[in-house]
Amino acid sequence: MFTPADLLMIPGPTPLPEGVRQAMGLPAIGHRSPEFKAIMKRVLPALQWAFQTQHEVLLYTASGTGAMEAALVNTLNPGDKVLGLTCGVFSARWSEVARSLGLTVVEAAVPAGQPNLPEQLKARLDQETGEPFKAVMLIHSETSTGVLNPVEDLVNIIQDYGALSIVDTVTSLASSPCPVDAWGIDVAVSGSQKGFMIPPGLSFLSYSEKAWQAHQQVRHPGFYFNFAKTRKAQADFTTPYTPATHLIMALDVALAQMQAEGLDAVHARHVQNRNAVRAGVSALGLELLVPDDRYASLAATSVKPPAGISVADIRAGLKKAFGIVVADGQKDLKGQIFRIGHLGYVHPRDVFTTMAALEQVLGHLGHTVKGHAVEAAQQVYQTVPVACAL
Amino acid sequence: MFTPADLLMIPGPTPLPEGVRQAMGLPAIGHRSPEFKAIMKRVLPALQWAFQTQHEVLLYTASGTGAMEAALVNTLNPGDKVLGLTCGVFSARWSEVARSLGLTVVEAAVPAGQPNLPEQLKARLDQETGEPFKAVMLIHSETSTGVLNPVEDLVNIIQDYGALSIVDTVTSLASSPCPVDAWGIDVAVSGSQKGFMIPPGLSFLSYSEKAWQAHQQVRHPGFYFNFAKTRKAQADFTTPYTPATHLIMALDVALAQMQAEGLDAVHARHVQNRNAVRAGVSALGLELLVPDDRYASLAATSVKPPAGISVADIRAGLKKAFGIVVADGQKDLKGQIFRIGHLGYVHPRDVFTTMAALEQVLGHLGHTVKGHAVEAAQQVYQTVPVACAL
Repeated sequence: MFTPADLLMIPGPTPLPEGVRQAMGLPAIGHRSPEFKAIMKRVLPALQWAFQTQHEVLLYTASGTGAMEAALVNTLNPGDKVLGLTCGVFSARWSEVARSLGLTVVEAAVPAGQPNLPEQLKARLDQETGEPFKAVMLIHSETSTGVLNPVEDLVNIIQDYGALSIVDTVTSLASSPCPVDAWGIDVAVSGSQKGFMIPPGLSFLSYSEKAWQAHQQVRHPGFYFNFAKTRKAQADFTTPYTPATHLIMALDVALAQMQAEGLDAVHARHVQNRNAVRAGVSALGLELLVPDDRYASLAATSVKPPAGISVADIRAGLKKAFGIVVADGQKDLKGQIFRIGHLGYVHPRDVFTTMAALEQVLGHLGHTVKGHAVEAAQQVYQTVPVACAL
Repeated sequence: MFTPADLLMIPGPTPLPEGVRQAMGLPAIGHRSPEFKAIMKRVLPALQWAFQTQHEVLLYTASGTGAMEAALVNTLNPGDKVLGLTCGVFSARWSEVARSLGLTVVEAAVPAGQPNLPEQLKARLDQETGEPFKAVMLIHSETSTGVLNPVEDLVNIIQDYGALSIVDTVTSLASSPCPVDAWGIDVAVSGSQKGFMIPPGLSFLSYSEKAWQAHQQVRHPGFYFNFAKTRKAQADFTTPYTPATHLIMALDVALAQMQAEGLDAVHARHVQNRNAVRAGVSALGLELLVPDDRYASLAATSVKPPAGISVADIRAGLKKAFGIVVADGQKDLKGQIFRIGHLGYVHPRDVFTTMAALEQVLGHLGHTVKGHAVEAAQQVYQTVPVACAL
């Protein structure tokens, strides 16, 4: 049989729309040309639309981790005390980045599969003595576990406390509702290879007036990720340094596609796909790492393998027999869960085929299937037929 | 008439080989997949080949300016005293980056079109009193003017003095001879959209044992550009954070093309193209900003317009009539020079057509042509026929 390109059902990089691939393959373009400026004039307002913010969104040629460093190095000074809310591998990265910059870090972690809850945060902040936290760092969608944090409530508490809220929205922006201004998020960072449906290499950062004021107090904000330099260049629809031109041309295409779909429809599609995956794997008798729908990420779903069947065998079966890639667990969760991504350019037909393949692979590995995964997914799409009018 | 894609005769981004464009348009790939690791296993040794270094070359998803910041933030601490050798806009950036990081910067500048000379550097270092410089920052090919600095000699002096040599080789690597180990360069940084013939968004950094030792003394080396984290990941042919997958796939193609051509042949082609451009514009009676061939960049040639004819008109004529893009001068040199790039995927036939078009545009603008630009270029290629066997 022929081998199709892999279907990436991982929490990023996500599959690429055809138009994005075409843009990636275009000839070279000068980044100081009028043609490129015209692209920036479309891309920058469209990013504001996606972030639902009045401020411009800063655009970096770097992956999401670069924008995380940008968030901290531009708003805090070495020695500043910060609180890191950790619920998995990616949220833990906030504290790692902060330490590497000489910040004083306190970490508050919850067990894998659980969200950071507002009441816990409130209690943690109330008990803190001595110097107050200058910032609280947290994540919206933690794809190492599949948790969706209640960011709006968390940010409200941080706001009342008087600290900056610095939020990793890498896998939530453009998939989950995340209106950064309405929620009062001081700094939100996101990446290109997730809801934005283009390859990795770009990251995006929104900031509040309060974050901008904090930036004024920073002694050594660095150069490459510097807020002020980036903002100044973007006011003229350019970038301070050479940007990844082709990723921005691809982003132009992707944002136009998102705007044609509509932000609410993008979110509704992600809700449906997540619900369909959760219904499908549950129908197969598999256990979800995040049992509570309210805290289930719209980007990825973590599934525990049936007793006696290894994650490695499930992943290998899906990949070898069907060219479908799902992710392993990370660090302590390696081999304990597999993660099905349903983020970005993912359509119900990708969910159907993944559910059908998973059912078949599990059967082949000896798992007695308790229900029909595809049927369960169909029921979800039947209930709220957003992706296509049935 | 139809409009072809612009021919970019600027000092980067450079034209893209077909294979590079095809790689850019490939489907999504997981950056933790065996397929991507196989690409990294080819790319990383090929980068060492291009840099002519025994150490691994650190790969960043960022443009060259990001790697410049990486060079400084990983080897120096705030307050350290450094010397910046400036001969144009890009070399001046070293001092800007250094200041933004809290380093104490002394700048030694030469007029536009002149190189930083070894005897000047020696005298400058000898006269310095008080704390010695921890590092000297300089550029190899300064494309804002078209100067090629005598880096080997400069680095020798820096080595004798005992400081780190930190060199911007963005537009020299993979176009000019630059064996970083043989020359003893402590840190060299380069970018993807130059000699490496792919779109912007990646940068590369080589380091010496001495630079690595300096890294051990750095208090807050940061996270995204961290030497140790990058080196550790690359030892396993991966990256510490999500890389720009498609640019790396494109780099894989470009490096294979360079290896098939051979490094000496790549350099010889650039020498020929530069000589042909210099001969061509000289035949038209135009003055070169860098009169001395020994200090003429292999990446770009700066040309003064004839009296009474504006740079804007020359650029507009080339672009509108022929779809050929050459660069304006930057900052103080804006309108004073135009810059013809001959870097990366540039073939003698691109030089021929650029010379023919320039001759015609200048004639149209009223310049009395004193010779034939194409004929002069032909003579260069006749003398050393590297690009094709005549």
